[in-house]
Amino acid sequence: MSEAQGHGRGADGSAKPSKRDALIEAAFELFTAHGFEQTTVDDIVRLAGVGRSSFFRHFPSKEDVVFPDHEGCLAEMTIFLQEGSGTEDPVIRVCDAARLVMRMYAGNPSFAVQRYRLTKSVPGLRHHELSVVWRYERTLADYLRRRFAHRPDGTLRADVIAASVVAAHNNALRTWLRSAGQEDPSAHMDHALRFVQNSWGPEGEARSADEEDTDDVVVLITKRKAPMWRVVRGIEATLDDR
Amino acid sequence: MSEAQGHGRGADGSAKPSKRDALIEAAFELFTAHGFEQTTVDDIVRLAGVGRSSFFRHFPSKEDVVFPDHEGCLAEMTIFLQEGSGTEDPVIRVCDAARLVMRMYAGNPSFAVQRYRLTKSVPGLRHHELSVVWRYERTLADYLRRRFAHRPDGTLRADVIAASVVAAHNNALRTWLRSAGQEDPSAHMDHALRFVQNSWGPEGEARSADEEDTDDVVVLITKRKAPMWRVVRGIEATLDDR
Repeated sequence: MSEAQGHGRGADGSAKPSKRDALIEAAFELFTAHGFEQTTVDDIVRLAGVGRSSFFRHFPSKEDVVFPDHEGCLAEMTIFLQEGSGTEDPVIRVCDAARLVMRMYAGNPSFAVQRYRLTKSVPGLRHHELSVVWRYERTLADYLRRRFAHRPDGTLRADVIAASVVAAHNNALRTWLRSAGQEDPSAHMDHALRFVQNSWGPEGEARSADEEDTDDVVVLITKRKAPMWRVVRGIEATLDDR
Repeated sequence: MSEAQGHGRGADGSAKPSKRDALIEAAFELFTAHGFEQTTVDDIVRLAGVGRSSFFRHFPSKEDVVFPDHEGCLAEMTIFLQEGSGTEDPVIRVCDAARLVMRMYAGNPSFAVQRYRLTKSVPGLRHHELSVVWRYERTLADYLRRRFAHRPDGTLRADVIAASVVAAHNNALRTWLRSAGQEDPSAHMDHALRFVQNSWGPEGEARSADEEDTDDVVVLITKRKAPMWRVVRGIEATLDDR
């Protein structure tokens, strides 16, 4: 889903800006010039040259015009999670689902950065954004709950992992937005999501041939009753020492 | 902070219901009878027998009267996190901070359950609640960012752990609320937070004397390049086999 040419998903597939695009463009021009609170829907439709009913056909509220692509991205994420064969590693699957959100932002960096600055300065928009983020998190958690249904603590595990993935995603997204969209978004995202995957145990980690070549063996001796975190720390210390 | 006797924190410390308590009580009576959207601030002040300006002295908005104790709880959490000596295990510290929120709910079960049902049915309240939850999460994350400032990925680690703790807390809280406040809230909370602590490695885990008695040794042999989750799974399998 490339956003580089605008936000429209016109039924005719034409590159010509749609009414929806015109409304978004007009809204951001006014928000930037006069502030979000000071701009009315009437101001937006007047500048865009479309009727008031057109606005509400595309956006339930003035807040929604600031986040025009999230509905589409949520739908895309839902389909992506439904489409799996059910044998994929669930943690990797939700990480890949989260990447769809970053891809949406990265498809239109200047818009993403403009919106980031606007959202930071308007509490009402910040609240609206939280409800969008919550819907992504619910979508990921619902998928994980299904996948973990047979496990003890399946719901708890699902909720905690979904929250971890969203937090890691948002950390990487903010880092990229603060670079004014100049840095490589996928490098930040890969790093943050790998951090989560390492905590929760992804299946099917690919290993390259040269890793195989340097493979060797670690012997760890620990007290049986040592807590797991202490064992892990011991292993990490050993593995780092190479 | 016991809430069992009401929500008031009158300057005189008296048990007599304050104007604030009267407003909360009137608001919930009206919300339950007529619905949240259908009730106005004027309706609330009329039933409570106080002036309109009293309402706005205590609550910025109609939404805030539904969550009357969160400001106090946030302040308590902030102080608790500041008061540490700086040597506590940071993960255990944020888990204990999260317990303050549960304690607030558990102090007044019937009010907590009533609010849970109301919030579930009114989208505006759900959004308001998300912004409250977000402030708790930011408070925990800010503390962890300070504690992890010297670590690589300190900010990422802080954000992910704070989100994990909040998700685990909310999972336990919802389980308790769905039991209509009948079950033991701390048992649910201990279980959920232990799940997070086991993932992130709490320091200072207490070990009882009889655990010491059964102490013995595990030898694990693993390939050096094996991913950490596979090593952990191997250890878990070994430890379970007793």
